[in-house]
Amino acid sequence: MSIGVCYFPEHWPRERWTTDVEQMAEAGIEYVRMGEFSWSRLEPRPGELDFEWLETAVDLVHEHGMKAVLCTPTATPPKWLVDQHPDILQEEPDGSARHFGSRRHYCFNSETYREQTDRIVTVLAEHFADHPAVVGWQTDNEYGCHDTIRCYCDDCATAFRIWLREKYGGIDTLNESWGTTFWSQHHTDFEEIDPPRHTVTDHHPGRLLDYHRFASASVVSYNRSQADRLREANDDWFVTHNFMFDFGQLDPYDVGDDLDFAAWDSYPTGFPQVADDDPADADELRVGNLDQIGFNHDRYRCAAPGNFWVMEQQPGAINWPPETTQPAKGAMRLWAHHAVAHGADVVSYFRWRRCLEGQEQYHAGLRKRDGTADRGYHDATAAAAELADLDRGSVTAPVALVLDYESLWALDEQAMSPDFDYWNHLHTYYHALRGRGVQVDVLPTDADFEDYDAVLAPSLHLVGDDVESAFRRYVESGGHLLFTIRSGEKDPHNKLHATRPPGPLADLAGVRVDQHESVPADSPDARLSYRGERYGYRTWAEWIDADDARVVGQYATGIGEGRTAITVREAEPGSVAYVGIWPDAELADALVSDVLTRANVTHAADPLPDRVRVAHRGDLTWVFNYSSEPIDVDVGDADVRLGEETVPGYDLLVIEGTPTDVAVER
Amino acid sequence: MSIGVCYFPEHWPRERWTTDVEQMAEAGIEYVRMGEFSWSRLEPRPGELDFEWLETAVDLVHEHGMKAVLCTPTATPPKWLVDQHPDILQEEPDGSARHFGSRRHYCFNSETYREQTDRIVTVLAEHFADHPAVVGWQTDNEYGCHDTIRCYCDDCATAFRIWLREKYGGIDTLNESWGTTFWSQHHTDFEEIDPPRHTVTDHHPGRLLDYHRFASASVVSYNRSQADRLREANDDWFVTHNFMFDFGQLDPYDVGDDLDFAAWDSYPTGFPQVADDDPADADELRVGNLDQIGFNHDRYRCAAPGNFWVMEQQPGAINWPPETTQPAKGAMRLWAHHAVAHGADVVSYFRWRRCLEGQEQYHAGLRKRDGTADRGYHDATAAAAELADLDRGSVTAPVALVLDYESLWALDEQAMSPDFDYWNHLHTYYHALRGRGVQVDVLPTDADFEDYDAVLAPSLHLVGDDVESAFRRYVESGGHLLFTIRSGEKDPHNKLHATRPPGPLADLAGVRVDQHESVPADSPDARLSYRGERYGYRTWAEWIDADDARVVGQYATGIGEGRTAITVREAEPGSVAYVGIWPDAELADALVSDVLTRANVTHAADPLPDRVRVAHRGDLTWVFNYSSEPIDVDVGDADVRLGEETVPGYDLLVIEGTPTDVAVER
Amino acid sequence: MSIGVCYFPEHWPRERWTTDVEQMAEAGIEYVRMGEFSWSRLEPRPGELDFEWLETAVDLVHEHGMKAVLCTPTATPPKWLVDQHPDILQEEPDGSARHFGSRRHYCFNSETYREQTDRIVTVLAEHFADHPAVVGWQTDNEYGCHDTIRCYCDDCATAFRIWLREKYGGIDTLNESWGTTFWSQHHTDFEEIDPPRHTVTDHHPGRLLDYHRFASASVVSYNRSQADRLREANDDWFVTHNFMFDFGQLDPYDVGDDLDFAAWDSYPTGFPQVADDDPADADELRVGNLDQIGFNHDRYRCAAPGNFWVMEQQPGAINWPPETTQPAKGAMRLWAHHAVAHGADVVSYFRWRRCLEGQEQYHAGLRKRDGTADRGYHDATAAAAELADLDRGSVTAPVALVLDYESLWALDEQAMSPDFDYWNHLHTYYHALRGRGVQVDVLPTDADFEDYDAVLAPSLHLVGDDVESAFRRYVESGGHLLFTIRSGEKDPHNKLHATRPPGPLADLAGVRVDQHESVPADSPDARLSYRGERYGYRTWAEWIDADDARVVGQYATGIGEGRTAITVREAEPGSVAYVGIWPDAELADALVSDVLTRANVTHAADPLPDRVRVAHRGDLTWVFNYSSEPIDVDVGDADVRLGEETVPGYDLLVIEGTPTDVAVER
Ligand SMILES: [Mg+2]
Ligand SMILES: [Mg+2]
Ligand SMILES: [Mg+2]
Ligand SMILES: [Zn+2]
Ligand SMILES: [Zn+2]
Ligand SMILES: [Zn+2]
Repeated sequence: MSIGVCYFPEHWPRERWTTDVEQMAEAGIEYVRMGEFSWSRLEPRPGELDFEWLETAVDLVHEHGMKAVLCTPTATPPKWLVDQHPDILQEEPDGSARHFGSRRHYCFNSETYREQTDRIVTVLAEHFADHPAVVGWQTDNEYGCHDTIRCYCDDCATAFRIWLREKYGGIDTLNESWGTTFWSQHHTDFEEIDPPRHTVTDHHPGRLLDYHRFASASVVSYNRSQADRLREANDDWFVTHNFMFDFGQLDPYDVGDDLDFAAWDSYPTGFPQVADDDPADADELRVGNLDQIGFNHDRYRCAAPGNFWVMEQQPGAINWPPETTQPAKGAMRLWAHHAVAHGADVVSYFRWRRCLEGQEQYHAGLRKRDGTADRGYHDATAAAAELADLDRGSVTAPVALVLDYESLWALDEQAMSPDFDYWNHLHTYYHALRGRGVQVDVLPTDADFEDYDAVLAPSLHLVGDDVESAFRRYVESGGHLLFTIRSGEKDPHNKLHATRPPGPLADLAGVRVDQHESVPADSPDARLSYRGERYGYRTWAEWIDADDARVVGQYATGIGEGRTAITVREAEPGSVAYVGIWPDAELADALVSDVLTRANVTHAADPLPDRVRVAHRGDLTWVFNYSSEPIDVDVGDADVRLGEETVPGYDLLVIEGTPTDVAVER
Repeated sequence: MSIGVCYFPEHWPRERWTTDVEQMAEAGIEYVRMGEFSWSRLEPRPGELDFEWLETAVDLVHEHGMKAVLCTPTATPPKWLVDQHPDILQEEPDGSARHFGSRRHYCFNSETYREQTDRIVTVLAEHFADHPAVVGWQTDNEYGCHDTIRCYCDDCATAFRIWLREKYGGIDTLNESWGTTFWSQHHTDFEEIDPPRHTVTDHHPGRLLDYHRFASASVVSYNRSQADRLREANDDWFVTHNFMFDFGQLDPYDVGDDLDFAAWDSYPTGFPQVADDDPADADELRVGNLDQIGFNHDRYRCAAPGNFWVMEQQPGAINWPPETTQPAKGAMRLWAHHAVAHGADVVSYFRWRRCLEGQEQYHAGLRKRDGTADRGYHDATAAAAELADLDRGSVTAPVALVLDYESLWALDEQAMSPDFDYWNHLHTYYHALRGRGVQVDVLPTDADFEDYDAVLAPSLHLVGDDVESAFRRYVESGGHLLFTIRSGEKDPHNKLHATRPPGPLADLAGVRVDQHESVPADSPDARLSYRGERYGYRTWAEWIDADDARVVGQYATGIGEGRTAITVREAEPGSVAYVGIWPDAELADALVSDVLTRANVTHAADPLPDRVRVAHRGDLTWVFNYSSEPIDVDVGDADVRLGEETVPGYDLLVIEGTPTDVAVER
Repeated sequence: MSIGVCYFPEHWPRERWTTDVEQMAEAGIEYVRMGEFSWSRLEPRPGELDFEWLETAVDLVHEHGMKAVLCTPTATPPKWLVDQHPDILQEEPDGSARHFGSRRHYCFNSETYREQTDRIVTVLAEHFADHPAVVGWQTDNEYGCHDTIRCYCDDCATAFRIWLREKYGGIDTLNESWGTTFWSQHHTDFEEIDPPRHTVTDHHPGRLLDYHRFASASVVSYNRSQADRLREANDDWFVTHNFMFDFGQLDPYDVGDDLDFAAWDSYPTGFPQVADDDPADADELRVGNLDQIGFNHDRYRCAAPGNFWVMEQQPGAINWPPETTQPAKGAMRLWAHHAVAHGADVVSYFRWRRCLEGQEQYHAGLRKRDGTADRGYHDATAAAAELADLDRGSVTAPVALVLDYESLWALDEQAMSPDFDYWNHLHTYYHALRGRGVQVDVLPTDADFEDYDAVLAPSLHLVGDDVESAFRRYVESGGHLLFTIRSGEKDPHNKLHATRPPGPLADLAGVRVDQHESVPADSPDARLSYRGERYGYRTWAEWIDADDARVVGQYATGIGEGRTAITVREAEPGSVAYVGIWPDAELADALVSDVLTRANVTHAADPLPDRVRVAHRGDLTWVFNYSSEPIDVDVGDADVRLGEETVPGYDLLVIEGTPTDVAVER
């Protein structure tokens, strides 16, 4: 593994730069990311370009034997540019502007801003095209941060109309596809169609889904334009982008088609405070949630051709979550190992030194505000030294988990329960898979599933013929599928299929859903029987007609008592399970364990403790302990490469071997 | 009873229509409601009218021996109309538009929209004037849904000024009536007066009340214009409107003056989730709240000359409340009986078949998405068969409960407690009355109370001389009145009376309120003594000077200990009670039972269980069990017409006889 | 003490005025405040001035031997003025207007409104310049009520640019001072700078702090202009303003420079419902929070040269908090004594009589709506009679508590914890000081601390060289200082100091902060050891390097176990404590008691009960009991001037003597 760091020379006196870069080299850093957010320094006044300072910094990096990753500065257009072209600002659904003063204030569909982007990216790229230290670029920064994928301005209205015209050809096709007869929403012309601005109640699901697709596609095309400019200047450069965790408005798989590899920004103590369905507990406030981190590693590993990077790794206490807790002792080391074990090529810390100015003053760096080493620095260098001794093989997974952004967009708008959340439902299965020590690839619906022993596709809501055929072929060739609640309900236009759910998947799964209902959070009697055992469920329940499937789960209580909840259709040599409820953790484990058994996927005999996970890369297996209590691990005859069999709280163990060589005492 | 159904032929292929209509006829349906929300189908482009499809559907209905109820399509002006006349959109208090994309986006005071409404309603009415199947019309749909009675646009500003000018004549009269000296709110001209747009703190109560009156009156006049157009085309048609439950911004009694009968849309599992002061419990999520439903039946029975319809009856799980639970087995049958027992002429289900497109995909129909019968279908046909055997007499009530929208509007703006809610306070008394098996009419203040044995007027906040005289005459002629907290506090302009509350009612009640205070929800010691027993109260407490009344209740604890809380003035042969607190359920029962006794109204010796109610129509009495547990009913010698004396959970019993023939074992 | 009353003759028929004024005189009232909010009566139409009614009322007051305090009417510009100049309205961050209809709708930076203000104030002042009854003026009313200090309109944009130009001279200085390199926020010209309007995430802390300074300064200059006009007319008049409790957007010390004395409006049962960090309990709903009231008395006593007034004293139940509870029996008397004991010259009740019209109908007066005496009237006259017999000396305090509005503004924008609140943190120390019976002055950072034995400066966040020198001189001359968490973190531009906190104070305190973190509300193990005892803490924790200080507190649990939490640097004859946590009440008491001991400040041997406080003025000491339970007080040999040694619930005792003569049995 390589380590990197995010550096902002422009925030410090020039006379400090050499010291900083020397210290980086000394720390074993290989990549220095620079230039992010620096437009007003690169072009302090309209047309007055000043790249000298950045070039000097890149030179310094070069002189110290390190490599530079540069960033396009487009996430923060300077105020002079906004004042010249106020139309580049995004707008809220109520028509008010998203003003200058923070970041991400530009609209992806502003022609003006696209021209300005082309201009600044081109001159930057050409300037550094031949610099030997520059190895690649990050485009922009964290597309979608602060809910900025979706904009409601007039430029977006125009672009949406063009996008729709291209997609549908004629307005009648759009009317038919969306189903605009409902509530008199028939359109006579594409020019009538606006972004989904403020209304007194729900928007049309067809319009919403297309707007969400359009918004995501607008970013994809904006990013592609940056990538093209960069590759025109130097085709050897890599191009990447730093994604964030569960931002739901942008499909990173689509962006990934234009990247060499995906990167993401990992802030473990922040995410559980904002993205979970339960409050962050004491362990999560110190080291984060193990599966939340792992899920993102696995997703971004699959989001673009190459291996992934962690472009920004949390270095200490951070500013943006509600609680600004200190990470546990050793947390930054733990996170570096975690990323590497899941396949990261580079772990790059954000940032070199705490910044004295601006919105992120309360964000730690590897160095304190006074330049001395901070907690993260010691962790980072320790991890780097350890990882230098460990071989990096490849990461493979026998199981695919399907993440479908279009289903997410549709379900987000029609959750039909205060508790239904697509991410959390997906995490239920991810948690169960990882709990059995199984490697997981997180993939979109158009992935090639051929080589996976099992595929889990929770809440695959929008299903057209193509998706149905792909899964049918998969099962016919011996694959093992698991579908869950709300799958196949809708067609790709977000209309209901005229047949009962799972619609086109009904034959494949051998079931039809008779009724569904939401299950309130405090329902006393949400119990079912699965293969003879009682389990709990939550949030959603479907009453299934098992036309051509074996009933393996039935409601044991309540209004649906005796109705079918879970089925398996044996389709030798493959199988298709349908799960008509949101299982509790124990049931999710049982369901997952059963599909793994059917698919002949090696997995742990018992579930791992919740905060213990294993990860396998090349010939090595890591055991992570994200709890404060020590655990005892039996590694049998395997060679221990790092750590000891009693793994302290918030620590790890590396062995030569596979996950099945490891037994964790519960 | 007749049953009806809401049908949208335009949502389905023409080749399906005959099948649908045949199946309706087969199900015993008598009325088919159509045309709602169909403007963009009736006039796909400006001026291009296409009524052929609707006429074809009406013909089909006719051919199958059923009747058609048509709807004006004005709740959803098409986008081409909005684009031609963007000024028809409503506006928020902050000036942003309520855009096209859902429904109810038009302003009632837009002259343009009134013209467009006249045009479309007139041509539609003329087209169908002679069609033998068309028996009547529903105007628009659910006025007030999504809080759309009050709009803050410039057209409303203009109309408000005209309305005020008409009401007050001169600006000095307005200044005097509102009391605009306060905070320098004196106006020099009607042209100065705006709708109550966004301000940093409270608006003037006088301005608010008049704006709320004006907003309600704008809808009344808009609806009258539709009714006039319809009757001009065919005076034999009935005209109705489908109201919703406790929408507070529109006075349905005023709308009712222009209707032949009132209709309402009953969604029992939804209402307790959004309109109660406690969370919906398990029973409410399965069958709704018995008294919430009954209150609306009783209100809309009284809101217009004829008997009421349920224009939309919930057919199964619905889309709009937070939880989309399945109704209990038999719930749809239970609701049909409940409506009929309270006097409904027609129960019409919404909708024939689950719609594949648009915002209500998650709303069940009588038929599933694939056209097969759904749960509601079986319930509806069962109820229809049973009700065919039961005679329909008339509904009478010995007691009136006064519902005063102007008091509601005033109190909503000055609740003076986080817990004070006019509806909930009214429901406290309704619950107690129905708990003693007593029939109730829900009436406005200008009703004729002469024939009622008792009248309860909770929180009759705004009282002028006319109201005082009416009640004085009522008592003098032997009537029994009950007033409660906050009554007579204000004059009709929402100014305080200069005399102490209940102001003009003080002599009638024989009391003056010395002090009032709010009572926090968790107050430990809100106890009083009433006729020698201890009871609890909540939310509001008044210290009464009983100048000319008998003290029957006194505070037993707290800061007001020993002060008077409840009085009765004997005004032989009548009486006037004044209740200075919001009683808990037990005390409400005691208060109600005492006024019933004074008024000689026959009532149950003990209160019925909370989820059991009786209703009397003609010669029959229904017993409803809205709990999951069976109840034992002793009907004495009465003939059982339907069901058995042990009434299962969520079931009912019908006897020949009166409520007093029934005893329910608690 | 004198008592006053707020009177609105314009709300009542002229024939009533004499009765009212006679009754005031009879009640012993000395000051009658009038004219507030009366612009539309003083100038009913543009240019038509009508001062006759006010002059008549002032004459009446004069005739009855009382004095008049007049108010400028600028808090409520009439609608005709708004319609003539719609640009005077304030704007929200999203650009929507704060409309006419309530109050405080004008922008302090509107040139138009400044001219109109000058005009109306000048003519009013000139008109009453020679009236013998008029003794002084209140400017406007409650600046900042309803969060109106900060406005986002174009006039504010213009004024902000001028203010910045004046402060920084050149744009480069501003860029350097704020640190605008971060996120590309470099400005090329002052004209680029807007108010901090709606953005997708946080604004720049430098820009925010200057905007908050500018907004406060705008009010200061607006107020000064009023004061100047008034003094130009009659230099003998006093000029004051009625502040409110913890409104955080305006620095009253700055306003105070232009006032003869400060006044404030005291509503004890309202404040604990809106401004505390815990729900109001039963005592607080009856009499308010003793220390919340005392803190404001002490602050406003220090905010301007003269002694303070309570300009509006709560007279009974009030309209604006969530709960409109009745004050306890005697509460209004208790509050009058409390104000006097803390140094008030005048206690003036709001208002004479409950108003029949407008937004404050539910606000009691000394007289009921019908003109008869209300509860507050009896209390007020009782207090006046008692206080007439008690001498009024001066109030002195040995301890200063520093209240720094700029630190408040900076910390409010970067709280870094859901629970960090500057006011509550300050109140922790105020509570502890008053709990030891110690008198406190509440002062800004530029006060002269020379004569104080001890100075507590909690969370003194922004520290420049001037502040550091002042405190250094203070300690060198023998002063005893206490600093706490988050002090010295930032420079005056809201940038981090490049040295570790407490930055410039590090040498003085002898410490540097290594790390900080927020402490979640439910943290199980937030315990530390202080001088051998265990205590709890909350919200914030710092790990301290005690370079040159004695360690007196260490973390006993958790991630920082063993790290230093609290230090004292002995700097004979002075000392400097640094408290790196937010102490619980017991620890705050220990910390305060220790600094008082070091500083030789006489204080109670044991802390007083939470709802019992003493206050010393001249030769008298008051003991206040703000609980419902009686307390036993041992006054030794001191003469009791009022009350008895067993002080009933919600009552008081006055002795001749000092706080140390008093012992309260716990
Ligand atoms: Mg969590
Ligand atoms: Mg309920
Ligand atoms: Mg409190
Ligand atoms: Zn846009
Ligand atoms: Zn309008
Ligand atoms: Zn302004």
